[in-house]
Amino acid sequence: MTASPVTRNVGIYIFDEVEVLDFAGPFEVFSTASRVKSRLYLNTLKPFEVFTIADAIRSIPARGGLMVNPNFDISNHPAIDCLIIPGGVVTAELKRDSIIEWIARISSKSTITASVCTGAFLLAKAGLLHGKNATTHWSDIEDLRAMFPDVTVQANIRWIEAGKVITSAGISAGIDMSLHLVAQLESEDLAVKTARQMEYKWSLS
Amino acid sequence: MTASPVTRNVGIYIFDEVEVLDFAGPFEVFSTASRVKSRLYLNTLKPFEVFTIADAIRSIPARGGLMVNPNFDISNHPAIDCLIIPGGVVTAELKRDSIIEWIARISSKSTITASVCTGAFLLAKAGLLHGKNATTHWSDIEDLRAMFPDVTVQANIRWIEAGKVITSAGISAGIDMSLHLVAQLESEDLAVKTARQMEYKWSLS
Repeated sequence: MTASPVTRNVGIYIFDEVEVLDFAGPFEVFSTASRVKSRLYLNTLKPFEVFTIADAIRSIPARGGLMVNPNFDISNHPAIDCLIIPGGVVTAELKRDSIIEWIARISSKSTITASVCTGAFLLAKAGLLHGKNATTHWSDIEDLRAMFPDVTVQANIRWIEAGKVITSAGISAGIDMSLHLVAQLESEDLAVKTARQMEYKWSLS
Repeated sequence: MTASPVTRNVGIYIFDEVEVLDFAGPFEVFSTASRVKSRLYLNTLKPFEVFTIADAIRSIPARGGLMVNPNFDISNHPAIDCLIIPGGVVTAELKRDSIIEWIARISSKSTITASVCTGAFLLAKAGLLHGKNATTHWSDIEDLRAMFPDVTVQANIRWIEAGKVITSAGISAGIDMSLHLVAQLESEDLAVKTARQMEYKWSLS
């Protein structure tokens, strides 16, 4: 494990009825990875800066009633290296052209674009999964196939990489995928130490 | 699995520098359990009503910068059946008499009082772990022993029940403990279905 040459910005989109663990899992992984690395190397840059983004600066009701204040809105946020699109109830988001266009635009400049759970529907709608392998929550596999026949939807897999676009299965699979991204962007060693700090049993498949 | 005779209120305390997954994991488990059961039994009462509580109605900065708006404050919240005290940086909270007294008071009337990670320090300070078995994050085991010699601190265990007070190990162990509480308060079947909905590999030990 070496000192990070850069700090990568991890932007997590949140919206009405976003699934709590879909965004909180990746938030925990990337922020804990930064903390773990900063303890090991006193003079290192923090490897990840994590923030939430919503359509506007307003209190966002996540699924079950957790209320989250986004750090930024889509018209005014730092450059995003790693864009994370969580799932939840995405029906309304799929119909919002401004959001789908924002996802496509940010993704065109990102290093990584990743979805958790039904966030895959938003990536598909933004044209990011055309001709690619992808996955989603087990209960939504058939719907994703039916709505986006140009996507090769795979079941029974924790996450799938298709170039810079990564999709993960349901809810807690976003934690496993985020640990994989820590391994890929920083080091396997930091990912293992992050999982240990979280007392999380990392599922590689 | 039968219809719930009651809805149990699950109150999760949040504070400055609370660990994100410590509160978001239990929030996800109890709210998903309610959703899963409501789908199976159309006319059932929801088994759990989950909400967050803070010292005041203000935006709470969780660890890493996630901003959460509490649903209630400690002077005005519904009765709590299941009190959840997450961890994080608890140094400041340990010095706040009003918070420690609130935890002790609510716990005297709760069905269950549970901690995640370093939340165990707050339960110990509130006198709830005197003479009892308890656990915390692996890196804080020695500190908990040193600060509270009247507590029998155990390592290498996912969670420990001591009557109605339950303590869990670090961060993601709160998810496993919450699934256990769903099994205990509702049914093993609902806990298994909740873990499956979350695509979470439930650790029983």
